Amino acid sequence: MTHTPGPGGRIHDPAFARRVVSAEEAAAMIPGGATVGMSGFTGAGHPKVVPGALARRISAANAAGERVRVNVWTGASTAPELDGVLAEADGINLRLPYQSDPVTRARINDGSMEYTDIHLSHVAQMAWEGFLGPLDVAVVEVSGITEDGLLIPSSSVGNNKTWLDRAEKVILEVNSWQPPELEGMHDVYYGTALPPNRKPVRILHPGDRIGSPYLSCPVDKVVAVVETHAPDRNAPFKEPDDVSARIAGHVLDFLAAEVRHGRLPQNLLPLQSGVGNIANAVLAGLEDGPFEGMTAYTEVIQDGMLRLVDSGRLETVSATAFSLSPDAAERFNARAGEYRDRIVLRPQEISNHPEVVRRLGCLAMNGMIEADIHGNINSTHVMGSRIQNGIGGSGDFARNGYISFFLSPSTAKGGAISSIVPMVSHVDHTEHDVDVIVTEYGLADLRGLSPKQRVRRIIDNCAHPDFRPALEDYHRRAMASSYGLHTPHLLGEALSWHTRYLETGTMRTD
Amino acid sequence: MTHTPGPGGRIHDPAFARRVVSAEEAAAMIPGGATVGMSGFTGAGHPKVVPGALARRISAANAAGERVRVNVWTGASTAPELDGVLAEADGINLRLPYQSDPVTRARINDGSMEYTDIHLSHVAQMAWEGFLGPLDVAVVEVSGITEDGLLIPSSSVGNNKTWLDRAEKVILEVNSWQPPELEGMHDVYYGTALPPNRKPVRILHPGDRIGSPYLSCPVDKVVAVVETHAPDRNAPFKEPDDVSARIAGHVLDFLAAEVRHGRLPQNLLPLQSGVGNIANAVLAGLEDGPFEGMTAYTEVIQDGMLRLVDSGRLETVSATAFSLSPDAAERFNARAGEYRDRIVLRPQEISNHPEVVRRLGCLAMNGMIEADIHGNINSTHVMGSRIQNGIGGSGDFARNGYISFFLSPSTAKGGAISSIVPMVSHVDHTEHDVDVIVTEYGLADLRGLSPKQRVRRIIDNCAHPDFRPALEDYHRRAMASSYGLHTPHLLGEALSWHTRYLETGTMRTD
Repeated sequence: MTHTPGPGGRIHDPAFARRVVSAEEAAAMIPGGATVGMSGFTGAGHPKVVPGALARRISAANAAGERVRVNVWTGASTAPELDGVLAEADGINLRLPYQSDPVTRARINDGSMEYTDIHLSHVAQMAWEGFLGPLDVAVVEVSGITEDGLLIPSSSVGNNKTWLDRAEKVILEVNSWQPPELEGMHDVYYGTALPPNRKPVRILHPGDRIGSPYLSCPVDKVVAVVETHAPDRNAPFKEPDDVSARIAGHVLDFLAAEVRHGRLPQNLLPLQSGVGNIANAVLAGLEDGPFEGMTAYTEVIQDGMLRLVDSGRLETVSATAFSLSPDAAERFNARAGEYRDRIVLRPQEISNHPEVVRRLGCLAMNGMIEADIHGNINSTHVMGSRIQNGIGGSGDFARNGYISFFLSPSTAKGGAISSIVPMVSHVDHTEHDVDVIVTEYGLADLRGLSPKQRVRRIIDNCAHPDFRPALEDYHRRAMASSYGLHTPHLLGEALSWHTRYLETGTMRTD
Repeated sequence: MTHTPGPGGRIHDPAFARRVVSAEEAAAMIPGGATVGMSGFTGAGHPKVVPGALARRISAANAAGERVRVNVWTGASTAPELDGVLAEADGINLRLPYQSDPVTRARINDGSMEYTDIHLSHVAQMAWEGFLGPLDVAVVEVSGITEDGLLIPSSSVGNNKTWLDRAEKVILEVNSWQPPELEGMHDVYYGTALPPNRKPVRILHPGDRIGSPYLSCPVDKVVAVVETHAPDRNAPFKEPDDVSARIAGHVLDFLAAEVRHGRLPQNLLPLQSGVGNIANAVLAGLEDGPFEGMTAYTEVIQDGMLRLVDSGRLETVSATAFSLSPDAAERFNARAGEYRDRIVLRPQEISNHPEVVRRLGCLAMNGMIEADIHGNINSTHVMGSRIQNGIGGSGDFARNGYISFFLSPSTAKGGAISSIVPMVSHVDHTEHDVDVIVTEYGLADLRGLSPKQRVRRIIDNCAHPDFRPALEDYHRRAMASSYGLHTPHLLGEALSWHTRYLETGTMRTD
């Protein structure tokens, strides 16, 4: 079988080119029951066609009464053409380590899919350590294959190095939609090891390069190569609304005050920012703020981050993936080469590595579902039982960063839900890991405070005024009759705001 | 004023010797309202007499109607002659980052003392970053002062380097009870920095030395030196009971199986072990187990650890403090010099450093108060509100280690309390940070499992048989009517086991 590079002309090693097949042929090589490690992080760099072909095969098998399912590991969230179609086909048994897909979420919450929610920095090592069982197949998107058989990574790196290293067999998707100028933008570190052979990860500045621009995979392991030309997920970007802008304003005021007090350098410290509207609002605020020469050491490059690069405010960004709106993606793809000196994409094991996050001193800004009056954070569970997305990298950065911020509007569901509650219904970030909580009403600086001292700041500065009296009332009564007064609680009603919501559709009592 | 070295003859620099005063004179230099950084970690190396003199001054002032209190920062827990006397005198306003003193605990839980419970690896950097406010006075025990004015650390290092660096003025206690052979056993790393100037912490093996055997402090900052000859706290050691021995047995079986499966080297990985009977039982088990050439990278060297060194099983131990029984302390002090090649004492910032713990791949074994059926751990709060001790270093090791174990008897209070509950009443280690839970009934290996999958293992392997039916019943009903089935819960009764205990004195319904 011979092969002429397709329209993208991205496969320059004939040994790989000889393996080009259709998506259906590739998907047929994934046995039922297999554990499959797929590329993809925040809708970028996921395989575009093999998962769909696999889903169709699974649907057909299921219709024929033969139950076929696979376990799916990824970098983080993917897209409808991966999580969506496989969940729709009821084709996933166990999913890890992160998802944000509506169909997948529904499956997890109706009990028909198992989901293991893991710190993003832990996944690669857990797989390598053998804690997650064997990995049968890797399905990884790349943006090209060099003459020497090196793989040019795509718009996300995620866990691809680990999947390629660990999988029995490998399926590659070569996506010519990705700009060829991605070549040279990545830094794939091949120096990790299992203990007792681990060495320091020698990143001292966000832009440091310590690895290879390419992924490696012996061609003998590659059972199929599929050519695609398909865009990343790229959700549209919403302009910051008033609530987001007010949250961003409180963060910026705080950062400016920290600089004034000598607790932060003039150019701040490397930014880590979650995705979503509030994160983008903070980044938009930084565009107009007083800080120059900033850097970012983060997971994801979203629109706001790219604009900060464009404006010259942000000198260097390290991440593991893009997550751009269609407009921003078009803009980026047209001039990707110009960003190569200022953007580094790394494996998520390194972008989120506790060693590096602690050393660089990241400013960790993440969203939350709810906080309690003592400063514990729920990032993952609606009403304590229903998964939203997952912890993602928020724990990596909140635990090890310089200052950990958690940001949220003070209410949800049109004001029916208070984001500040007596006790969170699930804990992802404990009181020991939370420095600053911010809503549109203000900012609570919790550093060094006892639980009782935190109560005052969180209620007064962050809670929605409509919910403050009830929070005050809870705390006052807890102070009067709690079993202990270190963290005063009335356990009989600590979760009553959540049960009230489940019963009445609102946390309000009026 | 001239000074002849006292009976201990430990002050060899005349500039320091000239500053020798009584404990009362030293305590008088600590102003009311001051923040005082004291040495001390697990009852080792704390100042023995200045806190008592300070407490007497405070008591007298309080009796005279003048309200005097100080803020007290330490390494970790201390002893009756520090926490005990100051709490007794109602002399502490805010305490951090850890305590285990009964009088202090009572003060915190009756609301008369504020307590900030911080990851032990975070304290030094938070102080340096300025997040905890200014440090007025350091009161630090050392075991001697060299001719060149270098301070020979005592039986714990803790945060002493940081307190000496940061405090406005310094009071030293020179304790001649500590063996002179401690000289050379410590490794005080002076390479830490604030970001963006941090460098890798180049410890690649538990025994690596990267610092100085001495603490440094300009004599100009030293306002007082007090000579003492007084033992550390040194609680008696209990022989492992049956429950502890069974817990240890499950851990040893698991470790042996991990070696068989190639997931751990023959000599294991560096051990981290909390204090207490169960930890000592695990260490005692290792004495008779199949593992040779072990190492430890941990916080505390307790009796069991020392015995493993004596038996040759343990080649190297790195820690920040001793916590020995009187017998073991006597044995150690008599031959301290022989241990110098195999024991390294470091600042707690380094003994617990996320970078090093992750790199070395510690086996993290810590106690707990309770676990829930989904794998969340409460290490600190009795019935959600009353502080027991604090998180200590458990979070540093559980999050970043290779395998994180949490160990506890399956019941407490004569069987009235189940250590396995539907929902923990406080979370210190989230589901994302817990690999293995062990009680005397068995071991639940939770790696890679979804919350629902964990439920099965935790109930079947770990819960006391008397409580299993009620846990099963809760889970079955939660599966039937939980809002979401990712983490099935009935929020209206998730904490009902705790409220039942508070109301009836038992979690049992029979």
